[in-house]
Amino acid sequence: MRRVAIEFAYDGSDFFGYQRQNSVRTVQGELEKALERVFKIPIQTYAAGRTDTGVHATGQVAAFDCPNDKLSESDIRNALNANLPKDIYVKKVWFVSDNFNPRYEAKCRIYHYFILNSKMNDIFLRKYTWWFPYELDISKMRQGAKYLIGTHDFTALSKKGEEDTRTERTITNIRIVRLRKNLILVRVEGISYLRGMVRSIVANLVKVGIGSWEPEKVLEVLESKDRSKSAGLAPAHGLFLYKVLF
Amino acid sequence: MRRVAIEFAYDGSDFFGYQRQNSVRTVQGELEKALERVFKIPIQTYAAGRTDTGVHATGQVAAFDCPNDKLSESDIRNALNANLPKDIYVKKVWFVSDNFNPRYEAKCRIYHYFILNSKMNDIFLRKYTWWFPYELDISKMRQGAKYLIGTHDFTALSKKGEEDTRTERTITNIRIVRLRKNLILVRVEGISYLRGMVRSIVANLVKVGIGSWEPEKVLEVLESKDRSKSAGLAPAHGLFLYKVLF
Repeated sequence: MRRVAIEFAYDGSDFFGYQRQNSVRTVQGELEKALERVFKIPIQTYAAGRTDTGVHATGQVAAFDCPNDKLSESDIRNALNANLPKDIYVKKVWFVSDNFNPRYEAKCRIYHYFILNSKMNDIFLRKYTWWFPYELDISKMRQGAKYLIGTHDFTALSKKGEEDTRTERTITNIRIVRLRKNLILVRVEGISYLRGMVRSIVANLVKVGIGSWEPEKVLEVLESKDRSKSAGLAPAHGLFLYKVLF
Repeated sequence: MRRVAIEFAYDGSDFFGYQRQNSVRTVQGELEKALERVFKIPIQTYAAGRTDTGVHATGQVAAFDCPNDKLSESDIRNALNANLPKDIYVKKVWFVSDNFNPRYEAKCRIYHYFILNSKMNDIFLRKYTWWFPYELDISKMRQGAKYLIGTHDFTALSKKGEEDTRTERTITNIRIVRLRKNLILVRVEGISYLRGMVRSIVANLVKVGIGSWEPEKVLEVLESKDRSKSAGLAPAHGLFLYKVLF
């Protein structure tokens, strides 16, 4: 028995979120089915983060105990990819210490959010970007983003649900970049997040970007700790768990 | 009654090809359903080309007779986009002469074929590229492509089906470009094509690219007029009808 970590990508379009649930298709469910096909016994996995329905990943990380000590890292990778559905793909496999749990050992989680900012739709990006046809002022969005850097109570910028007992979180960086004329990337780096937090950050910055709000309004929303002041959530399908750092 | 042309995109993934058929979802079928929803009467459309199942378009062109003479070009565009499914999108609408039929008036049809040429898969491109993990020599592919330029009998590079009575076709240009380190574009310009012809051209050039064939073999295949000599067809999902010129 040897603990193994995997870095993997998935297209969230056809999953009911990450976490295993009976009777619906989830990323964890499909991953554990593939592991069971490979190793012939049920295997539990531990992931760095649970993404919501529709959210994608290019660098999710999970760990599990591998019952076969003879397989190399690339053997495991190939066996898994041969048994996974087309919308999950293992990019990297490496051996880790017996108690490695990505959820507790992640030092930084980086999310990417893509906005298709053009009058014209691009249907080939419809599942991977938020199509927002009104002009966005990126420099104002950057000003608004500054208020979010650091450790704050992010209750106002989160999704209602089972409440976390602790609502302080640390955002270390937000970068907003125009990748192409019509494609905007919002990159958020943080240690951990409340539910829906990145999507809420994006929705609030977009309010600033179209000029409905002054950048300072972001600080007001944050300090209110009141969800009803917030601009809500940007659509799930623009969001990618890009990378987890340990 | 006024004849209207539209330029439109579609994601071929969830269609059984272009041409209307009873009981399956096709691009023409969905387009004509949307037109009927807008104009309350059945409307027939005439397209520049019929794409196979799984093939995409960024610039398909179709014409139809618009029963409402009061609508502007952009009214028609907006009404159609509001009634089309998410995987079809009208980019442009313009008025044409009463007898305009894109099929007969197209001077040039440009197809783009995308090859993801990397060991590592990219699941977000799985429906829009052919994942080909072995190294391709682009300069050899270009040498092979030269033999196809001009007017030839392309029987060997086509798909078996209802045979065309005339099997000569004219290819005016083939460009092969590495767009990014791992992404190769094969751009084919021609007047018209036999069935499966672009996919066959790509499959044969890939044989040259991996070194299984010398570039000259492409000429041999072409001149044989024998499908059994050909490398077959590249997958449909890498192919886009990019643009139709009139």
